[in-house]
Amino acid sequence: MTAAWPMNKLAIHTRTTRNWDLRSCCAKYQQAGIGGVSVWRELIDPAQGGVSPDEARRIIVDAGLVVPALVRAGFFVSADTDERTAAIDDARVAIRDAQAIGAEQIVLVVGASPGVPLEHARSMVCDAVVAIADDAAQANLRLAIEPLHPMYASDRSCINTLANANDICAQIAHPQVGVALDVYHLWWEPGLATQIMRAGQAGRIFGVHICDWKTTLSDPLNDRGLMGDGCIDIANFMRSTEAAGFDGMFEVEVFSESYWAMDPDQYLALIIDRFSNLGTNPSLLND
Amino acid sequence: MTAAWPMNKLAIHTRTTRNWDLRSCCAKYQQAGIGGVSVWRELIDPAQGGVSPDEARRIIVDAGLVVPALVRAGFFVSADTDERTAAIDDARVAIRDAQAIGAEQIVLVVGASPGVPLEHARSMVCDAVVAIADDAAQANLRLAIEPLHPMYASDRSCINTLANANDICAQIAHPQVGVALDVYHLWWEPGLATQIMRAGQAGRIFGVHICDWKTTLSDPLNDRGLMGDGCIDIANFMRSTEAAGFDGMFEVEVFSESYWAMDPDQYLALIIDRFSNLGTNPSLLND
Repeated sequence: MTAAWPMNKLAIHTRTTRNWDLRSCCAKYQQAGIGGVSVWRELIDPAQGGVSPDEARRIIVDAGLVVPALVRAGFFVSADTDERTAAIDDARVAIRDAQAIGAEQIVLVVGASPGVPLEHARSMVCDAVVAIADDAAQANLRLAIEPLHPMYASDRSCINTLANANDICAQIAHPQVGVALDVYHLWWEPGLATQIMRAGQAGRIFGVHICDWKTTLSDPLNDRGLMGDGCIDIANFMRSTEAAGFDGMFEVEVFSESYWAMDPDQYLALIIDRFSNLGTNPSLLND
Repeated sequence: MTAAWPMNKLAIHTRTTRNWDLRSCCAKYQQAGIGGVSVWRELIDPAQGGVSPDEARRIIVDAGLVVPALVRAGFFVSADTDERTAAIDDARVAIRDAQAIGAEQIVLVVGASPGVPLEHARSMVCDAVVAIADDAAQANLRLAIEPLHPMYASDRSCINTLANANDICAQIAHPQVGVALDVYHLWWEPGLATQIMRAGQAGRIFGVHICDWKTTLSDPLNDRGLMGDGCIDIANFMRSTEAAGFDGMFEVEVFSESYWAMDPDQYLALIIDRFSNLGTNPSLLND
């Protein structure tokens, strides 16, 4: 039995191993032969105890890691004009920082607000993404809209299916604007394979995030499963993205109070074990 | 300010006021001028402490209430053939009991199983619904497939959008098979208004359930909001169903540990107050 994907196709989101600072993440990932690190912004914000973006760049280069993504900008939806402007300004800061650390893309969690109708919210998102797309292009950065699970439609993202994200990307029609596909958010979507192919054929699959869906969800935010803990046929999903032309790294993004309580070295070993075993057995799970 | 909908358009699911048995539900609802009661099966199952279906019928008739629905049958998805057969047998029991109590429809929560791919699960559902549709017709009963929110896709329902439910109803193409639209499950769906019209034009909107989506969800199952607690423009949803031809009652279905902890008379008064105020003010909320 050989691993279906080599270790250099694996990237980890720093939030996954949130007990470590950026230096520890990079050192540990490098030691394990992992290919990339997707950096959450608090780790490169000195005001939040992080290192400077320039220092981050040195740490990452020294470890020989690729940075698929800076995570995250967005939250573009608000009834308040000043708040919308502030979110766009913040996205420009993210673009500057992403360029500084050598990230390939910025993940956009686009936002939603309980008082704003979803159709209206999506217009606000389009306006904001259009406003920053040329800045991203000048920085040689991609902007990846991440559709979030419908359970986050009231407060985190008004884009909740890949079909809808594809529609919105087609409407924006900017070469730097595409999608990040997170299996946790999308696994249930009817017609998912068709939408993955559609995104791929448009050259818009910028990122692929993996984790698992646990049937017994104890918390809507921080109870994600690690690959193998749940019901998703993750290998099938990954192969679908590759068949659609995606050739980047697979990013492990798990928010989990129970895993965060583990010894982080043991947790990293478990992540690697689960990644190594993906797709090596025939699966009867969901597609 | 007058109420947009009269009290006789209101029905309540017995599970909403679960501290009461069927006799108390019916007496209290009648006293409040409510038009209907949707009956959960435990209340008409003597083995679970309920009354017999015949006794239930007498209680309901005495109270002058309509029964929009018996809730619920389904859970047709399993890798195990015997379990699938048992679910179909149980649905036939539900049909018999629904006829006995004078219900207009049975709500189908169709099921899902972590080991069964969703496409395969949907085939199992179609097979099961087809198997019981003629039994329902003979009992003059409708079968309402209720699409559940995607957060229940692994274990409760493989049908998670109205678009998908409409597709499946069109495939089954039986006059007794339609949909129950629950605003909690569907409010976020892109293109919802179009799908409501599609269901209505096919004569397939059998039931409409109302409650609200709270932004801060403390529990994926039992933390639903009462109308006005959350972010959904419920009146707009109700009007959409009426514009699509629905002329039945609006059923309040709320599972909520916090409301269940309230004094049930005060809770019923609150439900009535919230129902009375639906749609009487212009709303800026989601559509």
